[in-house]
This record gives sequence, structure tokens and C-alpha cells, in this order.
Amino acid sequence: MATSRSAKTHWEGSLLKGGGSVELASSGIGTFEVTWAARTEPDASGRTSPEELLAAAHSACFSMAFSNILDKAGHAPESLETSAVVGFQPGVGVTGSALRVRGVVPGLSEDEFVALAEQAKVNCPVSQALSVEITLDAALA
Amino acid sequence: MATSRSAKTHWEGSLLKGGGSVELASSGIGTFEVTWAARTEPDASGRTSPEELLAAAHSACFSMAFSNILDKAGHAPESLETSAVVGFQPGVGVTGSALRVRGVVPGLSEDEFVALAEQAKVNCPVSQALSVEITLDAALA
Repeated sequence: MATSRSAKTHWEGSLLKGGGSVELASSGIGTFEVTWAARTEPDASGRTSPEELLAAAHSACFSMAFSNILDKAGHAPESLETSAVVGFQPGVGVTGSALRVRGVVPGLSEDEFVALAEQAKVNCPVSQALSVEITLDAALA
Repeated sequence: MATSRSAKTHWEGSLLKGGGSVELASSGIGTFEVTWAARTEPDASGRTSPEELLAAAHSACFSMAFSNILDKAGHAPESLETSAVVGFQPGVGVTGSALRVRGVVPGLSEDEFVALAEQAKVNCPVSQALSVEITLDAALA
């Protein structure tokens, strides 16, 4: 069945001097500060940004896709740890998403794990919805 | 200056019976439950999903881009309220992102507001990073 999920952003003022908050509306789990500084300065602590939220979407989606591919191959994972790092360059845009996964998957060789991870990278719905470069570093934990 | 932002997902078990949590790592603002059910069932409360996180990224990015375009046109917004609704169809993927913005922008006509919103839709970095259909409903509040 098709579903939809929603979020809301409230913003006041200009890009550089203003600021806003983003609400995870469909889940109701929280509202978080978001600013241009939080997006473009080295220190990201305490405030989110579009790139952090994209990274969260991608790491969650990849983990789901990979768990399903592993399960269908007869090896549901004991655990997967997936990070996504999304880059941003003002004036250029979102520069890519770098996935890194480490898995505890009994009975699977390193080569099989890596090959199935590559399938998950390609087929994960968020990967398919993105037009930026995606890289993957996969290994058994 | 280029920046990067990161998130991490921990997952255990199969797609349907397992579950996980996603951490907004670069900001440190929280870790949230994520499951297949939260992604595909009508009730999304309490748990997030890749599509909700994409919606959050898109609504925040659009709001920033639009605030900047309005400011450069001499009309920094008093406030913008932007929602994004992202659709998901299992077996098909992410079906699109529907943006809706209402703004309080003194001195700007409805037509000007809508035209500038359309520019923000096209040029927002998250729009540019997405390959799915994006729609926009823009009006002064």
C-alpha cells in the first residue's frame, strides 16, 4: 500500500540572519532548529540541516534494503551499522552520499556480504530517488 | 566551504521482523526508532522513516532557498511555513515530494511570491539532488 510521510519547516527572516525549525510531523517525534550556519559551518552540534536529514534517510533506507536482501539470501543480519555522510558545497549543492556498513551476519563470506551490499546500494529506494554520487564501503564487522 | 553531515542507522534482524534506530550524528540531537511498519503502515506515530526524513530535508532546504531568493528580491520573509509530503510505494519506491508553502512577506504580490517560490523549488539543492517528481503549492498566508 502506498503511504505518505510529512515534515514541516517554519522559517523567519533572511537565509543568513534568519532561522527556522523543522518538525518530523507524521511521526510527531520532534522539532529541531535548522539554520544556514548549522548547514555550512564546521560545527554542526545542536542543530540539524538538510544534509544531515538526507544522510539519516539514506542510512535508514539502505539498512532496510540490505536487511531484506540478506534475509532473502538466507542470512538475516544479526546487526548492521550503517553511516551516511552527505556533502554540501554552497553554490554547487549536495555533492554526494558516502555509505559505510559493517555487519554481523553469521554464515556469510566477506565477498558475499560485499556483493549483496552493492545490490542494496543500487536498489534502496532513497538511492534510486537521488541523482548525486553514492559510494559504499562494506565489510563484515 | 564544503561541509559534510552524517547520520547512523543500527539495524537488527530481517526487514519485516527486525527494526532499528537512526541517529542524527553530526548534530547529536537525537536517535529515533525506525521500522518497516513505520514506513509502510497508515499509522506513522512515534517512529520515523526514510520518507519522513526526506520530507524534512526537502522542506528545510526549500525554506532556506526561498528565504534567500525573497531576500535578494528585497523582501526577506517575515515567515514561511513549508510542508513536504513524500510518498512511498513498496516495490516501486519513492513516488515524489509535494511542497506546500504559505508565506508572510510584506510588499510582495501573490504572483511575485508564486514565481519566486517556483525558482526556489527548482534551485533548492535538495530538489536538485532528487530525481523524483516535485510539486509545489505556493500562496501568501
